[in-house]
Amino acid sequence: MKLEKKAKESFVTSAEMVLPNDTNPLNNLMGGRLLHLMDVVAAISAQKHSNRIVVTASVDNVSFKHSPALGDTVTLEAHVTRAFNSSMEVFIRVWSENIPNGTKVETNNAFFTFVAVDQSGRPITVPKLIPETKEEKRLYEGALQRREVRLMMAGRI
Amino acid sequence: MKLEKKAKESFVTSAEMVLPNDTNPLNNLMGGRLLHLMDVVAAISAQKHSNRIVVTASVDNVSFKHSPALGDTVTLEAHVTRAFNSSMEVFIRVWSENIPNGTKVETNNAFFTFVAVDQSGRPITVPKLIPETKEEKRLYEGALQRREVRLMMAGRI
Amino acid sequence: MKLEKKAKESFVTSAEMVLPNDTNPLNNLMGGRLLHLMDVVAAISAQKHSNRIVVTASVDNVSFKHSPALGDTVTLEAHVTRAFNSSMEVFIRVWSENIPNGTKVETNNAFFTFVAVDQSGRPITVPKLIPETKEEKRLYEGALQRREVRLMMAGRI
Amino acid sequence: MKLEKKAKESFVTSAEMVLPNDTNPLNNLMGGRLLHLMDVVAAISAQKHSNRIVVTASVDNVSFKHSPALGDTVTLEAHVTRAFNSSMEVFIRVWSENIPNGTKVETNNAFFTFVAVDQSGRPITVPKLIPETKEEKRLYEGALQRREVRLMMAGRI
Amino acid sequence: MKLEKKAKESFVTSAEMVLPNDTNPLNNLMGGRLLHLMDVVAAISAQKHSNRIVVTASVDNVSFKHSPALGDTVTLEAHVTRAFNSSMEVFIRVWSENIPNGTKVETNNAFFTFVAVDQSGRPITVPKLIPETKEEKRLYEGALQRREVRLMMAGRI
Amino acid sequence: MKLEKKAKESFVTSAEMVLPNDTNPLNNLMGGRLLHLMDVVAAISAQKHSNRIVVTASVDNVSFKHSPALGDTVTLEAHVTRAFNSSMEVFIRVWSENIPNGTKVETNNAFFTFVAVDQSGRPITVPKLIPETKEEKRLYEGALQRREVRLMMAGRI
Ligand SMILES: CC(C)(COP(=O)(O)OP(=O)(O)OC[C@H]1O[C@@H](n2cnc3c(N)ncnc32)[C@H](O)[C@@H]1OP(=O)(O)O)[C@@H](O)C(=O)NCCC(=O)NCCS
Ligand SMILES: CC(C)(COP(=O)(O)OP(=O)(O)OC[C@H]1O[C@@H](n2cnc3c(N)ncnc32)[C@H](O)[C@@H]1OP(=O)(O)O)[C@@H](O)C(=O)NCCC(=O)NCCS
Ligand SMILES: CC(C)(COP(=O)(O)OP(=O)(O)OC[C@H]1O[C@@H](n2cnc3c(N)ncnc32)[C@H](O)[C@@H]1OP(=O)(O)O)[C@@H](O)C(=O)NCCC(=O)NCCS
Ligand SMILES: CC(C)(COP(=O)(O)OP(=O)(O)OC[C@H]1O[C@@H](n2cnc3c(N)ncnc32)[C@H](O)[C@@H]1OP(=O)(O)O)[C@@H](O)C(=O)NCCC(=O)NCCS
Repeated sequence: MKLEKKAKESFVTSAEMVLPNDTNPLNNLMGGRLLHLMDVVAAISAQKHSNRIVVTASVDNVSFKHSPALGDTVTLEAHVTRAFNSSMEVFIRVWSENIPNGTKVETNNAFFTFVAVDQSGRPITVPKLIPETKEEKRLYEGALQRREVRLMMAGRI
Repeated sequence: MKLEKKAKESFVTSAEMVLPNDTNPLNNLMGGRLLHLMDVVAAISAQKHSNRIVVTASVDNVSFKHSPALGDTVTLEAHVTRAFNSSMEVFIRVWSENIPNGTKVETNNAFFTFVAVDQSGRPITVPKLIPETKEEKRLYEGALQRREVRLMMAGRI
Repeated sequence: MKLEKKAKESFVTSAEMVLPNDTNPLNNLMGGRLLHLMDVVAAISAQKHSNRIVVTASVDNVSFKHSPALGDTVTLEAHVTRAFNSSMEVFIRVWSENIPNGTKVETNNAFFTFVAVDQSGRPITVPKLIPETKEEKRLYEGALQRREVRLMMAGRI
Repeated sequence: MKLEKKAKESFVTSAEMVLPNDTNPLNNLMGGRLLHLMDVVAAISAQKHSNRIVVTASVDNVSFKHSPALGDTVTLEAHVTRAFNSSMEVFIRVWSENIPNGTKVETNNAFFTFVAVDQSGRPITVPKLIPETKEEKRLYEGALQRREVRLMMAGRI
Repeated sequence: MKLEKKAKESFVTSAEMVLPNDTNPLNNLMGGRLLHLMDVVAAISAQKHSNRIVVTASVDNVSFKHSPALGDTVTLEAHVTRAFNSSMEVFIRVWSENIPNGTKVETNNAFFTFVAVDQSGRPITVPKLIPETKEEKRLYEGALQRREVRLMMAGRI
Repeated sequence: MKLEKKAKESFVTSAEMVLPNDTNPLNNLMGGRLLHLMDVVAAISAQKHSNRIVVTASVDNVSFKHSPALGDTVTLEAHVTRAFNSSMEVFIRVWSENIPNGTKVETNNAFFTFVAVDQSGRPITVPKLIPETKEEKRLYEGALQRREVRLMMAGRI
């Protein structure tokens, strides 16, 4: 196992179409379905950093500003912002695009935390993360405080 | 439209089986799939309170304590804790049960916020909520502060 | 294993939304999809009574009075009405609700029979069922005759 | 619209693979999923006879003798046995095959009743059915009595 | 294992309904979803000829002349045209039918190649195929040349 | 509408996990399911170039060298190689990755052709494509000949 990995080694992008079964009576994507898509992309990103099976430990506050519509293309981008012992914080940004109309908006973004586990589900150490760009460094710095907030909210500290 | 409704009028329960496509390589339910199930049940609850189409405005911090396994029964219970102008806070509790083994644990719980909207997606007033039991009153009291935290985190106040 | 269990110990409720892929060209829920939902809820109920893996042995005559529409909430309630040696009769009632319109109708109801099986699929004894309410007693009494009809129709007696 | 159609004009066959999400913890097809598959094939058959949109009116007693396993091929055959005013009785037979092992069994069979409807869901007259083979004639003759039983059980006569 | 089998022993037919989730914004079946349906039916056909697990080795050029619409019935017919050592060419024809309107068109057709494999995924010999009808013989004759083209395009000869 | 667009403006990437329902009895991704994923990503790419609704006109010969396994991450990359009048050729490459094992292979690649259509499904002109890199130019040059082969095979020239 590598001891350190760069933030960019965990970058994952995914493009999905909003299908009828994912929508509410207004023909817009349901929030829960988007959370599901975000979880899958973020899990792939955490896997890339840790080369391990990963499980979702928590999701920070997510808010939904815009509603992707039926037929829109939803683009998700995820990367690990910081690795702790066995846990990793992943930042996910989501865009929604009506390609024929040429409109594109940022739908929302979120922080998910994953824990690397072995075959019997026990937490296992992951490589440290090296941030390189300015944005990566900003996210890396903020991660410590977000970690404290979420552990407190989970009643763990 | 009624001007007031009791908390219990918005109670919704749902029982689901964990199917293969919902699981990770350890045969446990994926976090994103559980968030999806929680969103659907919570949306039905918010619909019951408001008799309106509702959209997910936000999800507070969710943490996952236990992993329901393939074949387990997941039971979700949701009810509205407090209604504001167009928005409603919904509390969702999730249990996971291996019925043949007779084991049952609380998997997690969360607060989702929904906004009632008209046919063109514009926010619209909802009835006030009347809490009755001690638990309902406790959740009702806490709702104001949670609202402030989440609106602040969404950059809305 | 308990030798006896009360009817209410097997109560299961589930709330589902009618999604586009479940509907016919009139935008109503397809009968086969509803039977699928009924089977899952009834199986959870039979599992609760027997604490065993269960398989569907038969479905009595089901008739469809109303068609839940796209976007409606379908609520299913199931409980075991009587247990025999390895088999259990489960009664399922289904309501369909257009929550924004405030309309709710009983869609249909049915009796499914499940057999408790061991890991190799062989039938295995289940606890007796104790009916308590008047309704539970009425269903319990009728179960013996329904059992005869269905075993006769299956060419088993 | 033709006034009469032959039984064979409504023949439909469909072959499906048993996939993981359709199975129970014993890796066998769930009863409700098979009912769903039967309903779709039977609906196509009733459409072929009537050249109309059709809705499921009822399902007669179905019993499950064998369990198709994960990976098996399930073959369904359906045809209309008799047409009344707006309703048609459809007979469905199901086989389950483990092709690599060369084993094939009749899983079960059932009678579903469909009603032809217009665009607003109102029942509409269908062509008479002409049975030709001995088997078709036997099913045609029995249909009248089965119709009485099911209308009685649905509390309609 | 039989050393030879007739073409007709591998015939498979399947009827499917076009559901909302399978369609594009024009409410027509998506090409990729049709390729998926074709692959499943063709795989069952190759299984029937070989009594083996089979994997898709290649798909020849497929072109889409017509678009099945939402609610249409898609009928697929497949059979093996020729068997080589471990590989089999399967011919699939697809029709699309709007049954209420009484219209039926051939949507397209294609050749898929499957390879029979053992439990560890290694190619394994299959029976020879005996064509009987004129059409079967025509397809059998052409198979040799099509095989050369596709192995060349796969860079295998 | 722009008259010309660069190849890179149509780049689309998507990462997907291989789920149980997508696999065969050897626990490997089914060919038809991969074709489905390829079609969706390629369609998004053709939409990006044309800012139009697009339909799949044809798929060139595809061969499957490797089998992505259950739990693997499948990465698809697509871009338009050349635009004609209303049609566009899209090149798709697929990688399969077992991230915990650190293995990554090119699964396969293919050319799909899409046609831009208006709201009634009639072909409509698309911008020209400007290739920039050496690879883009190589694909652009080859497109003319591939177009001739596929139109000939479709019986159109
Ligand atoms: C939620 C939404 C309707 C709010 O619309 P808006 O134009 O911002 O409306 P307003 O500012 O008047 O706010 C309306 C209510 O939403 C609440 N709200 C807005 N953002 C919120 C957030 N992030 N968390 C909680 N509540 C929020 C406001 O507090 C207000 O509540 P109140 O009426 O009870 O006081 C709008 O942002 C939206 O449609 N979002 C997308 C919803 C969606 O489709 N979710 C699924 C996406 S996949
Ligand atoms: C149901 C099943 C377990 C019965 O097994 P069996 O070997 O016939 O066992 P038995 O004759 O000992 O009967 C066992 C019980 O099943 C009941 N049973 C059998 N067929 C039945 C039917 N059609 N309807 C209702 N009960 C039935 C018997 O009455 C008996 O009940 P009891 O123990 O309470 O007296 C067996 O037929 C089976 O596995 N069927 C397939 C179930 C399945 O997979 N369903 C989904 C298919 S898609
Ligand atoms: C197809 C596969 C089994 C061939 O294995 P291999 O080790 O190359 O085996 P061989 O070279 O001995 O070839 C075996 C047969 O496959 C045929 N074959 C190989 N590639 C082929 C192609 N692209 N098109 C058609 N036939 C092909 C060979 O002609 C040979 O046929 P024959 O035995 O009838 O003469 C192997 O490439 C494979 O497993 N591919 C992945 C299949 C898959 O999972 N598909 C779905 C992916 S999503
Ligand atoms: C593809 C389609 C729009 C072509 O329509 P048409 O009336 O034949 O139109 P034209 O003859 O004017 O051809 C339009 C373009 O399609 C191209 N085309 C047609 N058939 C093609 C084929 N098999 N392969 C590649 N390109 C093809 C033509 O070359 C032409 O391209 P150009 O405008 O760049 O020169 C039409 O056949 C169609 O709608 N097919 C069904 C598409 C679909 O629904 N796919 C999914 C089915 S499940």
